[in-house]
Amino acid sequence: MSVIKPRTPTGTLELLPLDQIAFQDLLDTIRRNYERYGFLPVETPAFELSEVLLTKSGGETERQVYFVQSTGSLKQGDAPELALRFDLTVPLARYVAEHEHALSFPFRRYQIQRVYRGESAQRGRFREFYQCDIDIVGKDELSVRYDAELVAVIASIFDELAVGPFLIQLNNRKLMRGFFERLGIADAEQQTLVLREVDKLDKRGADYVRRTLAGEGFGLAEAAIEAILGFVSKRSGSLAEARAMLGELGGGNAQLEAGITELGEVLDMLEGLGVPESRYALNFSIARGLDYYTGTVYETTLTEHPGIGSVCSGGRYDNLASHYTRSKLPGVGISIGASRLYWQLREAGLIGSAESTVQVLVTQMDPKLMPEYLKLARELRTAGINAEMVMDAGKLGKQLKYADKAGIRFAVILGEDELARGAVMVKDLRKQEQFETPRGELIKALRVEIEQAIALGELRRRGKAS
Amino acid sequence: MSVIKPRTPTGTLELLPLDQIAFQDLLDTIRRNYERYGFLPVETPAFELSEVLLTKSGGETERQVYFVQSTGSLKQGDAPELALRFDLTVPLARYVAEHEHALSFPFRRYQIQRVYRGESAQRGRFREFYQCDIDIVGKDELSVRYDAELVAVIASIFDELAVGPFLIQLNNRKLMRGFFERLGIADAEQQTLVLREVDKLDKRGADYVRRTLAGEGFGLAEAAIEAILGFVSKRSGSLAEARAMLGELGGGNAQLEAGITELGEVLDMLEGLGVPESRYALNFSIARGLDYYTGTVYETTLTEHPGIGSVCSGGRYDNLASHYTRSKLPGVGISIGASRLYWQLREAGLIGSAESTVQVLVTQMDPKLMPEYLKLARELRTAGINAEMVMDAGKLGKQLKYADKAGIRFAVILGEDELARGAVMVKDLRKQEQFETPRGELIKALRVEIEQAIALGELRRRGKAS
Repeated sequence: MSVIKPRTPTGTLELLPLDQIAFQDLLDTIRRNYERYGFLPVETPAFELSEVLLTKSGGETERQVYFVQSTGSLKQGDAPELALRFDLTVPLARYVAEHEHALSFPFRRYQIQRVYRGESAQRGRFREFYQCDIDIVGKDELSVRYDAELVAVIASIFDELAVGPFLIQLNNRKLMRGFFERLGIADAEQQTLVLREVDKLDKRGADYVRRTLAGEGFGLAEAAIEAILGFVSKRSGSLAEARAMLGELGGGNAQLEAGITELGEVLDMLEGLGVPESRYALNFSIARGLDYYTGTVYETTLTEHPGIGSVCSGGRYDNLASHYTRSKLPGVGISIGASRLYWQLREAGLIGSAESTVQVLVTQMDPKLMPEYLKLARELRTAGINAEMVMDAGKLGKQLKYADKAGIRFAVILGEDELARGAVMVKDLRKQEQFETPRGELIKALRVEIEQAIALGELRRRGKAS
Repeated sequence: MSVIKPRTPTGTLELLPLDQIAFQDLLDTIRRNYERYGFLPVETPAFELSEVLLTKSGGETERQVYFVQSTGSLKQGDAPELALRFDLTVPLARYVAEHEHALSFPFRRYQIQRVYRGESAQRGRFREFYQCDIDIVGKDELSVRYDAELVAVIASIFDELAVGPFLIQLNNRKLMRGFFERLGIADAEQQTLVLREVDKLDKRGADYVRRTLAGEGFGLAEAAIEAILGFVSKRSGSLAEARAMLGELGGGNAQLEAGITELGEVLDMLEGLGVPESRYALNFSIARGLDYYTGTVYETTLTEHPGIGSVCSGGRYDNLASHYTRSKLPGVGISIGASRLYWQLREAGLIGSAESTVQVLVTQMDPKLMPEYLKLARELRTAGINAEMVMDAGKLGKQLKYADKAGIRFAVILGEDELARGAVMVKDLRKQEQFETPRGELIKALRVEIEQAIALGELRRRGKAS
């Protein structure tokens, strides 16, 4: 029989087991923090009805959509009934609108699932990747205080991930629009165009933005352009500086003043929530590409790895689901692109392969003692310790090499001698140390070893949960 | 703007949050047991290259495949490059073949992901559903002892799920084929056809099978048919009976004797692994539809709910990945269809909505005390307790009703009076009881309450992990 070359499609992230464990640990940390802050899990199907998913016709987004068709439908040349979700926001809008009457508002949901984009594959660009989203959706209204709570969630996650210093950068679209309005750029569409240009500052530089804003289509006066560039270059270094930045803006129109008030309330809340000042800053250049943000916007960067770009972004929107319901559903949300984050942390050397989820290997020193090994494995598992058992006879040295290669920390060894003494040997494959323990105290001894390794950050807690 | 009716595609399982939590608890129990028995996580992309996925041309399977195409490719009329996986076995074969040199053998992997089938939607039939698979894959050879270990995993999972008595039914394809051979049905293909008919016993009855086996294409003698029907009607009620069933079979050919030896070894191991006799039985009628099983086969039924059918099935195969590699990779595996299992357990009233993952609601009795509430929420979360905070002022009664509807067990209440006394009120919304505790002892008091509820099986462990 001819053999087909086994290969994964490009633009997907498939990992070896120890890397998969590290990735799973990342997702678990995010999930645990989302739950700790009171968010509820939701999962939606990977595909949606095309008609429901693609409410806006044309555009960048639609060109990246993957359509789904069964063989039968393909042969008949039907238009595809289904399409894979390209983000978790449209499915959330559909979900909230569909289940509106069964949900309690404010509705706090987290969703950790894969999304799909029909991109041409590039290094670090994924066609399938995990997004980890939280949103708080209100009915008719939603306090700006929730905007602050999301900052606390982001800080909690990146603190726990221990990937070095990070900065959550905050801005407010009302403040930004109000500022433009004061400069005479009153038209909302024109503001959006200016925002888009300003968003290119990091990539294209100030001179490019200056030329564009002075040129055709914009024709802004030099003073206005300099005011804008001065505005977007401001950063706060502390809570006091952030408050001062807001105070110095002055007023002049309702939008600007609303934005100042909202950001001010967010700052007050952050203090109350105990988010350290070093974790966040105001940055008036943050605009976010998406047009639907209407208030607070967030970006999060790793201070020592600016090249990675934003690792957690989001913002406040006025109405989540206007395509699906006439109810007004304002909300605020953030998203972590976990596949990209994992991949970039790995590239930056901030994340490595994990130790195995298997904590103990029960070796087979003497095939005659199989009943003893079975009993050992059973005791370990009953005690909530993850254990693998060697079933095929083989040299002990080879078994220990297997454990080492597989990232298993401990091996349990039992031969005729130990059995006669009522003892068991435990080998720590990381420390390359071993010790003997009475057979009846094996579980206790292993628990101490495992807890020590967890306390030292060498192992993560595994096994027994409820 | 016109509104599009929000709706999920048929044949998908989308749940409200408290049901999603119950489903997630089911997946977590399965995952925890898989890890406890030493299996490593693997995830593969939802889609595979069509050429790689569809190694066998035509057939039932291909007709159910969902193909994936981007808009651009659709417009050009290209043949779809990608297709959604329809099970986790083909991706495992591709994975093991692709990463063969980076993996340690025996390779023990678990995979909990969704699969896709282009089925016409029926009640309880899913087009997207979770499968939870484990497989142990050897290089060149793999001891039959692993076949027994999988029985222990199944028993451990269904014990922990607490869905009533269950029975893991065992058979062996070699034993079955050897038995047929002794009856003069020596041709492997003819045996497969007979097996397929025997597999219909439950659905079509003995008379139908009798007629078919006597009729055209089979033409078996009455004695042979009765021997077959007697053979497949045997069930063991205990370990001793199981051993007797094997002993009574007699020998006569290599296949039969190999099957008897293998099942005998599995029984010996099950005793050593401590699997209770009431959890498993020999059943010579278990054939499994798939042709590629070559040794042990498994089916698991819920004793009090026979209508649900098998909730966990699998078996031993000679060669996992012959389409992708010339290496010989024998293995043994089982699969739990978690979406179907959840749906049927719910229909049977064996599973309900869960309590919320949110353990405590911090209410807002007096807006002036917001800094106190923020501090409370922060303390709870730091202590690893999942907490939601009320951000918008409102009547306390309404806040408590929200908590109750949302399945949140405890509410923390703090007003001017409590503040003056240095106390906090805790309300248990399930018991409809409340008590006051000194402010400094709130965390301790809540931990005691939560631990008690966990011990009573009213709550699951949440929050703090590492």
